[in-house]
Amino acid sequence: MSKFLPNKDDDYSLWYNELVKKADLAENSAVRGCMVIKPYGFSIWEKMQAVLDKMFKETGHSNAYFPLFIPKSFLSKEASHVEGFAKECAVVTHYRLKNSPDGKSVIVDPEAKLEEELIVRPTSETVIWSSFKNWVQSYRDLPLLINQWANVVRWEMRTRLFLRTTEFLWQEGHTAHATRAQAVEETERMLEIYAIFAEQYMAMPVVKGIKTANERFAGAEETYCIEALMQDGKALQAGTSHFLGQNFAKAFEVQFTNKEGKLDHVWGTSWGVSTRLMGALIMAHSDNDGLVLPPMLAPIQVVIVPIFKNEEQLTAITAKVNELVAALRKRNISVKFDDRDTQSPGFKFADYELKGVPVRIAVGPRDIEAGTAEVARRDTKEKKTLPFENLEEVIENLLKEIQENIFKKALDYRASQTHVVETWDAFLETIEKGGFISAHWDGTPETEEKIKELTKATIRCIPLDSVEESGVCVYSGKPSSKRVLFARAY
Amino acid sequence: MSKFLPNKDDDYSLWYNELVKKADLAENSAVRGCMVIKPYGFSIWEKMQAVLDKMFKETGHSNAYFPLFIPKSFLSKEASHVEGFAKECAVVTHYRLKNSPDGKSVIVDPEAKLEEELIVRPTSETVIWSSFKNWVQSYRDLPLLINQWANVVRWEMRTRLFLRTTEFLWQEGHTAHATRAQAVEETERMLEIYAIFAEQYMAMPVVKGIKTANERFAGAEETYCIEALMQDGKALQAGTSHFLGQNFAKAFEVQFTNKEGKLDHVWGTSWGVSTRLMGALIMAHSDNDGLVLPPMLAPIQVVIVPIFKNEEQLTAITAKVNELVAALRKRNISVKFDDRDTQSPGFKFADYELKGVPVRIAVGPRDIEAGTAEVARRDTKEKKTLPFENLEEVIENLLKEIQENIFKKALDYRASQTHVVETWDAFLETIEKGGFISAHWDGTPETEEKIKELTKATIRCIPLDSVEESGVCVYSGKPSSKRVLFARAY
Repeated sequence: MSKFLPNKDDDYSLWYNELVKKADLAENSAVRGCMVIKPYGFSIWEKMQAVLDKMFKETGHSNAYFPLFIPKSFLSKEASHVEGFAKECAVVTHYRLKNSPDGKSVIVDPEAKLEEELIVRPTSETVIWSSFKNWVQSYRDLPLLINQWANVVRWEMRTRLFLRTTEFLWQEGHTAHATRAQAVEETERMLEIYAIFAEQYMAMPVVKGIKTANERFAGAEETYCIEALMQDGKALQAGTSHFLGQNFAKAFEVQFTNKEGKLDHVWGTSWGVSTRLMGALIMAHSDNDGLVLPPMLAPIQVVIVPIFKNEEQLTAITAKVNELVAALRKRNISVKFDDRDTQSPGFKFADYELKGVPVRIAVGPRDIEAGTAEVARRDTKEKKTLPFENLEEVIENLLKEIQENIFKKALDYRASQTHVVETWDAFLETIEKGGFISAHWDGTPETEEKIKELTKATIRCIPLDSVEESGVCVYSGKPSSKRVLFARAY
Repeated sequence: MSKFLPNKDDDYSLWYNELVKKADLAENSAVRGCMVIKPYGFSIWEKMQAVLDKMFKETGHSNAYFPLFIPKSFLSKEASHVEGFAKECAVVTHYRLKNSPDGKSVIVDPEAKLEEELIVRPTSETVIWSSFKNWVQSYRDLPLLINQWANVVRWEMRTRLFLRTTEFLWQEGHTAHATRAQAVEETERMLEIYAIFAEQYMAMPVVKGIKTANERFAGAEETYCIEALMQDGKALQAGTSHFLGQNFAKAFEVQFTNKEGKLDHVWGTSWGVSTRLMGALIMAHSDNDGLVLPPMLAPIQVVIVPIFKNEEQLTAITAKVNELVAALRKRNISVKFDDRDTQSPGFKFADYELKGVPVRIAVGPRDIEAGTAEVARRDTKEKKTLPFENLEEVIENLLKEIQENIFKKALDYRASQTHVVETWDAFLETIEKGGFISAHWDGTPETEEKIKELTKATIRCIPLDSVEESGVCVYSGKPSSKRVLFARAY
């Protein structure tokens, strides 16, 4: 048990908050609900960004940048969008400050009031579609495949580091297509990319599915999502991909001349993941000693700690370690040699466990004599003394094994926490234990609302792989043809 | 002469605006003063970011992220900073909208007024130093070397794409050090990095110097800058690096225990470059046919255009071109093969000239027979028919030659436009012609102001390589020991 963290089984929420702070990932700022992402946390986010950005570009998308501010009137142009987004947001009303009469502070200059208020973007569909209008004339301009990395603001009442913050970082993809089929295909392609990223890089299994009408993005015809299960049995929506139909094209008059020479509205999609993924990554794998990072997203994959009592020993160790460092870097493994003499090896061990470094190598004078090193893996805590010779290859394989093991562990956990439920009594009993519930639902928003009201469980999604089977709704007893996935969620 | 652009010698300003729009770099948005950076423009900015980010990391800096919003009271904490920055900025006063009484639009909810207004960051010293307070306790925590890539907002009255926009993208470095000497060293190190970036990557010669007190950053003890000369003879400040002394440390109480166990305030720096560099890049090299991009920052370094009348010809050309494409990519050269049949070769030639692609290769049926290709360079417009064999090596060398040639051309231009001036009459005559004026100045803000008032010329900097020499001020006739650089500026 770490001396740094509370036990996650006693208070998962406290454990999470402390872990985020103690592992130097993020902290609260002086501005309510806004976080500071610290260098170590940001370096993980940068790795996520790099992988996602590459995947977006490989599928033909280009990055661009659109204004932070949205004229208030834009939000009203798409009827359901304004309902979903115009409410809790930061409003800029003035553009100047002036000295206070006593000269000791600054006050808002009442003379500098904006004619039309500006909204700090909660999402950018409106401002982007107002540009798309100028970018699309003909079918030759389609598909238009744009992505933006940006900060957005949603005025949240209850915030938690990474999971729900007033300002957060994200990417938002926005695309326009000539046909409905192409837009649907794009929506599904990007969902698949998110799923691959979550499973292969974050080592976090996800369920791909479709949201119910209640949970749909404001302005979308269909919202696809990936849902993950955290270690406390709560679900977390990790990414969404929206098929927008022609809603925004009509609201912003984005039309194109098709091959037959006729004018038509384009079909749209939007899709996004955010720094919330950092919260998911932390909660999916970490333990009472700290973070457990999948090697593919770990900023430091291997740390080497020398054990020495004097300068002479350190010199001998360093000579040997330098060879290993070079050999590891040659294999594109990121490695840090921590030879600080201001901290003890014990302190370093605990600190790198807290920070989730996948592999730790300790080298002492006896190792130098024996030609060995002690290799410890973060995920299982297993330690082995291994020969120095060819160690780089062993480490490379070990990193792959850790990546797979973390994923498998999360997959096994999810399997053990996914419950097929047939009756309302069983539902009530099961939901208290946490995890996913696979159950029949009659398809009505009323039943969905009622279940949420009674149990705090929501329909996370209608899984894409849900098979047709006749059954009865777990709450209403009405007929149902498919199971959906319920859970309490973040 | 391009049919797309006005002549830059007739109206440089119009030429610039049209070029930015026609080359798909950026456009104005629906929000006054805020631009949309279009995919092609953004891909150049991404290349700039990648190079700079690598240089920052290689010099020990880490990225982090701090809030978009700054509590109004923070701005007043550093006395001169508030004077410089608190005036023209976007102020968030409310956090909610509600439906208008007629239900047709949304209005600001007067109930949702913030207790303390939030300022959209014009720069982040205040919010970052308020975090540094928690990050620094001991000399072991120093130096603290942080960088942030972010959007910032300054309410500009007159805006121009890239050069001066209400919202812009930038990086801002913020560092804390144990001693004055170390902070000064950091300030100079980052100026040097900016200069290397400008000259070696942007192919844009710059003068390194120090700003006069008048032009200093609000809150700094010393502001270093790099200044470039545009093709219309106006100067452009391309980057700044500030030595902050202990000003922000004192304002935000950032203290550390030094090696002797005594408490002391840390010493700070900040430094930044922005999307303004895009404007500089465009203006430094481009001509009446469009952009001229230095190969090191060109998203597409080589474009290959097939000349064909039928499918059979295209097939033969494609087979040959594919070999070249593979060979170029192997050398990390970014190449595009534009085999669209919807546009003519002539259209493509003009479009890639407009977009500044450094090398264009055209391949027709006769080339296939002869085993040749036509290679055209964007900078000099020179065309040569070259053998296909080993063409990749020729192209690689040509790209280097173009990079050097563009820099040399800009250097020669600057040399021809830098005038050593001794008398006020000569100053008045020379300033009308544009370019840099190297002249003696008596060192007083009054003279500086007077010269600005009379000529619109400002002191761009006191060059770092300015030699001690006794002279008399070009305006006041008072004694002076150093020449400074005057110019009209963007």
